[in-house]
Parts: sequence; structure tokens; C-alpha cells
Amino acid sequence: MHRTKVKIAEDALDANTTIANANRADFDRHGVGVVNFMSAPGAGKTTLLEKALGGIDARVGVLEGDVQGSADADRLAALHLPVVQLNTDAGFGGECHLDANMVRSAIPDLPLAEIDLLVIENVGNLVCPAEFTVGEDARVMVSAVTEGEDKPLKYPLMFRTCELVLINKIDLLEHLDFDLDKFLYHLDAVHPGVEHMLISARSGEGIEGFRDWLQRVARRAPAAA
Amino acid sequence: MHRTKVKIAEDALDANTTIANANRADFDRHGVGVVNFMSAPGAGKTTLLEKALGGIDARVGVLEGDVQGSADADRLAALHLPVVQLNTDAGFGGECHLDANMVRSAIPDLPLAEIDLLVIENVGNLVCPAEFTVGEDARVMVSAVTEGEDKPLKYPLMFRTCELVLINKIDLLEHLDFDLDKFLYHLDAVHPGVEHMLISARSGEGIEGFRDWLQRVARRAPAAA
Repeated sequence: MHRTKVKIAEDALDANTTIANANRADFDRHGVGVVNFMSAPGAGKTTLLEKALGGIDARVGVLEGDVQGSADADRLAALHLPVVQLNTDAGFGGECHLDANMVRSAIPDLPLAEIDLLVIENVGNLVCPAEFTVGEDARVMVSAVTEGEDKPLKYPLMFRTCELVLINKIDLLEHLDFDLDKFLYHLDAVHPGVEHMLISARSGEGIEGFRDWLQRVARRAPAAA
Repeated sequence: MHRTKVKIAEDALDANTTIANANRADFDRHGVGVVNFMSAPGAGKTTLLEKALGGIDARVGVLEGDVQGSADADRLAALHLPVVQLNTDAGFGGECHLDANMVRSAIPDLPLAEIDLLVIENVGNLVCPAEFTVGEDARVMVSAVTEGEDKPLKYPLMFRTCELVLINKIDLLEHLDFDLDKFLYHLDAVHPGVEHMLISARSGEGIEGFRDWLQRVARRAPAAA
């Protein structure tokens, strides 16, 4: 029974990769760099985007993934960016992650010809989003210091598949028992040498560095059509 | 294609319920009350258990669910309780939740005849764990104030299926922009009247109330065989 289950999972991941490649071709054709933005619930993804996308030197669109609701999309729309909401409970069975097919279903609503960078804010979850590529150039994850030092060891695939790890809420460090050196040691154990940034959406520390990083992903794409 | 997917999901949930009932029968036969303990990653489940299970007036066992590793099980074993580790990446494909079949596979390793209460610490995730009953008497979830006030609206099923919501890390309230009244308003919107407790594993506030609550679940079970 377990073997059958694993086989189904492998087939599903193969199909996902095929669709992700089709997404990638569409993004390439329009010269759009794509970031898959992931974290646990409440790690601060939306607030970081609010801060980093304000004043960014690129034409940015956002695809907002949530099980239900449009609260985050509404917050980001206030930045006057094109934002498309994708709810995983509407026709997708309440999925805990975005997959390539869900992103594909949203592509017709995305103004790809008018943007240089697409940020896909995934569902808050440290497990399944890491297993499904959606056609992105790069993966960024947020790990808040309030979540503890052990998270790289408990969710290694997520930390291993990212190009950038944002260590968020560092304004709270002095009020926590969080050991930053221990976290970095664990991070290095699961993903040696991965780029990371200390950041705080609240104090603004590190926001500029993240904004610069996003601008480099936008430029990574071929010239816009 | 979506219809097929939903059909498969429904079949899977039916099978899960059947196995959960078998688990429930085993727990009943041995007079064990069972708590399914859930939260986002890093909300503080293990630390709360460390505090609340120390000095509890009941014979307690723990089933520790994690994608990978045994760090939490090791911490709880230090309390000299029987702890069984269940890794969802070992034969289960890296699942983001526990299901009834996974729990069933662990039952032979659990000393059911020697405990009054089994606490099942689920994988850190606010989506899928809520969809899979494992044969529990009650569900408890932890929502940390560091995660923001919007969580009940974004993960309504999780908040709706719990008998108790622990609002954790309240020692940090003064350092956050978290609006507790707004959180409680959202909680009441998705699960009117649900019992909740303000708690802090760090300061100890609320731990005694949670310990009493666990003792009541232990007593809810029939007399031990």
C-alpha cells in the first residue's frame, strides 16, 4: 500500500514538472523573472513584500496563494501592483501548497507583458511547497526567529531548495531565547553556503538588501518583449 | 481533472476515517484519552508539552510526528514519559501531516495498557492535519501571537475543528503590534464560543490551566483495563 502511494506521488511530481516547464516557457517569452516565496504561517511574508516592493526599481506583479480569503492580496494591491489571488480551496481541494497547475491556471490573469518580476507568495507551510516547482527562477524562504533554531533540521527540504533564506523578526531577538549562531550552524548543515539575510519588516533592517536581491532576479530574465 | 482529484481525496478521507475508528477502538479498549496537538511550525507545541506534562496527574504517553529527526521526541523523553517517534518521510513519502494509518503503524509501539492519556504531536502545519482525524478524543491547536491576528481567517478549518485554542507566547505581546481583541474577534467568527487560553511556555502563565484541561481528557476515557 505504501509503495502504491509513493508511485502516485512520483507520477504527480512528474506531471508537475512538465507543467512547470510550460509555465517557465511563458515567463521566458515575456522576459519575467519569477520568485517562489515560501515560509511557515505567520513568518511575515506579506509584510516583507509590502516593505521591499515599495520603491523597487522593477515592474512587479504578485500571485498570492492562500487556502482561503484575499487579505494578503488586498494588502499588496494597496501598493498599486497587479495582484492575482489564487485560492487553493476553490477547485483545488484545499491544498496546502501551490503546484505548477494552479499557477498555470492563473497565468491568463497575469499581465506578463507588463512586468519584469513575478513574486509568487506560496501557502504558509514548510513541507509541501518545497516539493512542487512552479516554473520559478529562484526560491526564497522566510524563517522567523520566533520559530526557534531547530527549523532547518526539522524541515530540511525547504531550507535546501532555496537560493535565499531571510531570517526575519530580528527586532525581537533581545526578547527571545533564540540562539542565532545555532540557527546558522543548523542552516549550514542542511544547505552549506546558502545566502541568508538578517531582516526585520518592523525595524526596516535588511529590507534594502532584499529589495536589491529581488531587482537582480528581475534583471536575470531576458529583455522584455 | 480537478473532479478526479477531488474524488481521490474523498476516497482517501473515507479510508482515513475507517482506520481512525479502528485506532479509537484500541484506545477505548485500553482506557486511553487521546489529544491531537497541532500548530504551525515553531508555535511552541513541544515546549508547552514539556511544561504541562511535567507534574501532570495522569500516566501520559506521547506520539511525536515529524517529517524528519527526533529532536522533539528526545526533549520529551527527558520527562521520563514513553515517547514514540513517527517520521513521515520514512515510508510515508514526506507527508505534511499525520493520518490515521501512520498512527495505526505506531500503536504496537505504544504502551496503551500503561497510560491514561496519549498526546499526539502532529507535524507543524495549519492545513492538512485538520483534514485527517487519527482517532482522537479532542484537538488542541496552538496559535502564537507572533504569527499575527489573521490566522483564524486564513486557516479556518484548523481553528474550527479544535476543542481548545492555546494563544501562546503572550509574554511577547508588549513587543508586538499584535491586536489580541482582533484575533479573538476573528477566532469567534470561524469557531464561535471555542474554548481558548492565553499561555506562555516561557513565563509559565496559563500552563496550569492547560495541564488541568489535559487531566480532564485523561479522565474522559473509560477505566483502564
